[in-house]
Amino acid sequence: MAIEIKNRLHLTQGTVDITRTAPFALEIGRTLPKVELRYAMYGEPDADCSNVSLVCHALSGSSRVDQWWPELLETIFDLERECVVCFNVIGGCYGSTSAASINPETGRVYGGQFPQVTVRDWVRAEKLALEELGITHIRTAIGPSLGGMQALQWAVEYPEWVEKVIAMGTTPLNALGIGLNHLQREAIRLDPEFHGGDYYDGPGPRTGLATARGIAMTTYKSSELFHARHGRHPDRKGTAPWQRESGRFDIAGYLDYQGKIFWQRFDANAYLAVIRAMDLWDPQRDWQGEAWQRVQAKVLLFGISSDVLFPDAEVKCFAEELRSAGVDCRYESIESAHGHDSFLAEPDKLVHLLREFVGWEAPLGASFRNSSGGEGLKQAGGNVA
Amino acid sequence: MAIEIKNRLHLTQGTVDITRTAPFALEIGRTLPKVELRYAMYGEPDADCSNVSLVCHALSGSSRVDQWWPELLETIFDLERECVVCFNVIGGCYGSTSAASINPETGRVYGGQFPQVTVRDWVRAEKLALEELGITHIRTAIGPSLGGMQALQWAVEYPEWVEKVIAMGTTPLNALGIGLNHLQREAIRLDPEFHGGDYYDGPGPRTGLATARGIAMTTYKSSELFHARHGRHPDRKGTAPWQRESGRFDIAGYLDYQGKIFWQRFDANAYLAVIRAMDLWDPQRDWQGEAWQRVQAKVLLFGISSDVLFPDAEVKCFAEELRSAGVDCRYESIESAHGHDSFLAEPDKLVHLLREFVGWEAPLGASFRNSSGGEGLKQAGGNVA
Repeated sequence: MAIEIKNRLHLTQGTVDITRTAPFALEIGRTLPKVELRYAMYGEPDADCSNVSLVCHALSGSSRVDQWWPELLETIFDLERECVVCFNVIGGCYGSTSAASINPETGRVYGGQFPQVTVRDWVRAEKLALEELGITHIRTAIGPSLGGMQALQWAVEYPEWVEKVIAMGTTPLNALGIGLNHLQREAIRLDPEFHGGDYYDGPGPRTGLATARGIAMTTYKSSELFHARHGRHPDRKGTAPWQRESGRFDIAGYLDYQGKIFWQRFDANAYLAVIRAMDLWDPQRDWQGEAWQRVQAKVLLFGISSDVLFPDAEVKCFAEELRSAGVDCRYESIESAHGHDSFLAEPDKLVHLLREFVGWEAPLGASFRNSSGGEGLKQAGGNVA
Repeated sequence: MAIEIKNRLHLTQGTVDITRTAPFALEIGRTLPKVELRYAMYGEPDADCSNVSLVCHALSGSSRVDQWWPELLETIFDLERECVVCFNVIGGCYGSTSAASINPETGRVYGGQFPQVTVRDWVRAEKLALEELGITHIRTAIGPSLGGMQALQWAVEYPEWVEKVIAMGTTPLNALGIGLNHLQREAIRLDPEFHGGDYYDGPGPRTGLATARGIAMTTYKSSELFHARHGRHPDRKGTAPWQRESGRFDIAGYLDYQGKIFWQRFDANAYLAVIRAMDLWDPQRDWQGEAWQRVQAKVLLFGISSDVLFPDAEVKCFAEELRSAGVDCRYESIESAHGHDSFLAEPDKLVHLLREFVGWEAPLGASFRNSSGGEGLKQAGGNVA
């Protein structure tokens, strides 16, 4: 277990092997003989684990919450007395077992042979890993997008573990989202460097992955924001599209840049694994329609007014579904032009409500005190849809 | 000139060579030594051409209006006394000069060497072709989407020719649309069968084109419609995604099917040419900000409530831009869940208003008679946004 400490963050990193006694059985019916989970822990757990919260990362995130959601650590949690844990998901590319790992049964890299993992697999693996770390209770499980799916699945799978769940921009993925993930997979498979996932001795499907990322990026922001930022302007760093046939508009330059920094940091097999897990998440199918009846946690679901991937209206319906199954579920919405990414782009709009719900701090200020059910946020963030 | 007549449609088809006396100069600075335009003509022009209307096809359409917009011919126009002409655009794949044509200068197919064409090129070429056909006046220029761009460009380029313009789901393409077209181009270029556009001796980039079409399809309908039609259901004609790793959701089966029927009928180079022309359309740039001051035609702009590619709010702003430049421009909106495709999917919602604007028929029925400025449509089609 590799350990490093950073003072301000009280950060410990390490890797837990959850297959020391038995292989790990996946939901899809296959087993992984060896599964290691890479984690980051901020702060220290109490003796009774009453101060431990779990952050679940979104699609392209990692266990290093401080790198992708610093505001959460800085404003929601008090790392002097609280402990926050985050795992890299199985199949991802930040240190947990994945397609880039060696298959102990063959002695070779899995590549295209790595099995499909699911959100439920992630949660079951993380429970084993937490137990290895001596943790048996989660104060708050919190995550945006795919991370929210995981946080909710925790409350379904191990209801006695979880006190509170916060999921932002999360519902089971709708038809449009599934369709766009399908097209992203096609773009990666089209790349001649993909080789069915067995590309680790070559450059890999960089352009395909960049194109997939570009497709995804168009759903993470709002059309309104793209219009304001890029409009019909020529590429600010290149040739205008009407000057040369190879010229670009600014939005194309932006998407190309986002694609490039993505293939530099992310693995295509990991991307395929993670977006497929997102497609497949459906706790009701896992539990034959009785998933939400299992939940004991209080749940807070956030929608974002301009989210085209997980529309606010669907988050609201989802909250009603949970409530009608008896879950103590609160729904909130924030007004933002930043689309699905608002939870990262506009943390200020979330902080007050998250602090209140997490419950570590004194009640919120005067403008929130007289309100309930989202009214506070309405005043802080504009119109609640 | 090949001619065939179908009685009901009074259809004549033919090809006009607009380069008999001179090569055709393109906006981008190159010339085409030979340009032929394939057209369809429904009905017969009067001696003074006062009964001729021009339909401009959308991205994947052709001159055969009866095949992609039969309701227009059947309900808006009276082919016993009116004449409707439609041209296949240069660069498209339904009979006009394109990347699949022989370059007279080399004796070989253009392929990837075919130059970029623009909406303005199309209009200038069509004007020459109409003159060859003895037509010098357009009663109504009408088109959806890219066809609307062309219809408007007609009124800018040859203001004295055009009496009325109807454009549906048309504005200069916004940043999101440009970005998605860019990603579609990437998907086509990724296909190993693309060969830089020189693929006519092979199968061509079928999967790349199908993927591009899939991306586009996600913007032609609304998320709401996809949700209602496909939801999270497994592929109705195949294996469920949770049963086998190769399984699909229903939306993926739908997009794959749409992609397949598209590559069977459309050419990838044509697709690249046409979506690039869509990106580039910007009459204000062509005319240094004075485009709309040139227009003499009455203009009707339609927005669609659920259009994500050409948002209704942008159509409304666009109408205001035209009006503030002195254009007699009317804006209407239809409420529909069918997205950008509504003009095809829900023609009933358009018919009354189009008939009224085209002005060939008696005033509309009682429910429309007392209203103006879209109120009629509001009653017919639900809420006007």
